[in-house]
Amino acid sequence: MKIKVALCQMEVIDNKEANIKKARNMIKKAKKEDADLIILPEMFNCPYENDKFIEYSETLEDSETLKEVHKIAKEEEIYILAGSIPEKVNIKNQTQNTQYDKKYEIYNTSCLFDDKGNIIGTHRKVHLFDIDISGKISFKESDTLNAGKNITVINTKFGKIGIGICYDIRFIELSRIMALEGAKILIFPGAFNLTTGPAHWELLFRSRALDNQVFAIGVAPALNEESTYNSYGHSIIANPMGETLIQGNYSEELIIQEIDLDEITKVREEIPVLKNRRDDLYSIKRI
Amino acid sequence: MKIKVALCQMEVIDNKEANIKKARNMIKKAKKEDADLIILPEMFNCPYENDKFIEYSETLEDSETLKEVHKIAKEEEIYILAGSIPEKVNIKNQTQNTQYDKKYEIYNTSCLFDDKGNIIGTHRKVHLFDIDISGKISFKESDTLNAGKNITVINTKFGKIGIGICYDIRFIELSRIMALEGAKILIFPGAFNLTTGPAHWELLFRSRALDNQVFAIGVAPALNEESTYNSYGHSIIANPMGETLIQGNYSEELIIQEIDLDEITKVREEIPVLKNRRDDLYSIKRI
Repeated sequence: MKIKVALCQMEVIDNKEANIKKARNMIKKAKKEDADLIILPEMFNCPYENDKFIEYSETLEDSETLKEVHKIAKEEEIYILAGSIPEKVNIKNQTQNTQYDKKYEIYNTSCLFDDKGNIIGTHRKVHLFDIDISGKISFKESDTLNAGKNITVINTKFGKIGIGICYDIRFIELSRIMALEGAKILIFPGAFNLTTGPAHWELLFRSRALDNQVFAIGVAPALNEESTYNSYGHSIIANPMGETLIQGNYSEELIIQEIDLDEITKVREEIPVLKNRRDDLYSIKRI
Repeated sequence: MKIKVALCQMEVIDNKEANIKKARNMIKKAKKEDADLIILPEMFNCPYENDKFIEYSETLEDSETLKEVHKIAKEEEIYILAGSIPEKVNIKNQTQNTQYDKKYEIYNTSCLFDDKGNIIGTHRKVHLFDIDISGKISFKESDTLNAGKNITVINTKFGKIGIGICYDIRFIELSRIMALEGAKILIFPGAFNLTTGPAHWELLFRSRALDNQVFAIGVAPALNEESTYNSYGHSIIANPMGETLIQGNYSEELIIQEIDLDEITKVREEIPVLKNRRDDLYSIKRI
């Protein structure tokens, strides 16, 4: 099966309306080029800043951002992975935990829409990005965000798709479990920075693809030099041989690339890594 | 802690005596350059051919190859990982299994000698290399070899060292478990070929190093164009940031490189991947 995938490497600015409009325009353009599956970047409606995560957050029920994605997925009859948005979850049962003074929690959340505009799966980033590389980059998502509690594999008309977000890609267990559960495409909306990006972005996508003999896709916001957090861009598709099939640069661009899922079968026959696993010696599983 | 590691990328020919002599000479040369840990390649005493595995095989007790390594480790007071050799194991209790007509089993086995010449750990390759890339490379180790039954982490004066052999590196579970058990250096004597080598060798070492934030070391035989199986060479050390610290070429060479284990601590503080693992969501362990 061949799928035309569109990677919307959009510049995200400090204006939710403008970001949604930008996403809409890129989706329409991708549809015109016959894309089957359109992917938006991590935090596509919101600058990558802890304060902004709070300010821009929306509940899934009342999200103006997702309403717009729903509308366009339905109108254009197209699958859309809505990168991620800061999701607000109101806490109802505060009486059960009197020491808890927050009225809401925020997650970094990705929703997959089918071609009727229905949300068919949701992933909340499970590994929060708390790094501190001396003199280079420091960021602590856990200051504002809560971590998801699920590994996400979604049935689609293209087969099973596994979803992670950004830092999730560094954790081999997540991708392996998704692949063992049948995911043939792993998608990570992500926003690496100008330190970790050049160092690790391509290596991680190539290795997740090779280790699991799947397609690994990363979609990042374009570099916006005016923002406090500088995204590396370089949206990428790695194939089951661990090769970079296509990769963007720093600037805003729409990348459209056909992938052939039959390559997975071929590579797995030639180098039967998943078959040769020694599950009598080790186990890896969801808890 | 700083360790000077020597990678003996030796050419292996169809002459056991000559191979042992070559290994001895490279070890002596490495010792003169103040190496602390010397590593020989996979099948350093034997051509990489199924028939030769049988012909060259030796029991650990009566191995002339390992006696020589023992002697030189003791004489030179040096740690030596004896790449691997085809190990013969005589089957004693045949009466218990009358349908079993083989008198022996053969393993692809690596022994680690300490600086007194004692074997302090042994790894038998656990993932047998059975690949068939159409028109390029086909090899079926399982025609002659048996697979090991253990994951191998060895205590040394340099800290814990994890050992795998060649194809073992493709299996993320093995390296992860060794790292979680405290291995700071993962060593894979290996002999990739002229198809899988250019495609995957460096990527695999860089990704095992980055994923686990350890040093990952590969030591290969040099390319011998007269042999039926052409080794890719390119012996390599990848550091905990996933960078190639040093890499050889195709020909015979002795690579000596200092590694600083303190880099592991630094990288793990900066990008706390092992700490941020979600062991409430997934488990990975030995069986």
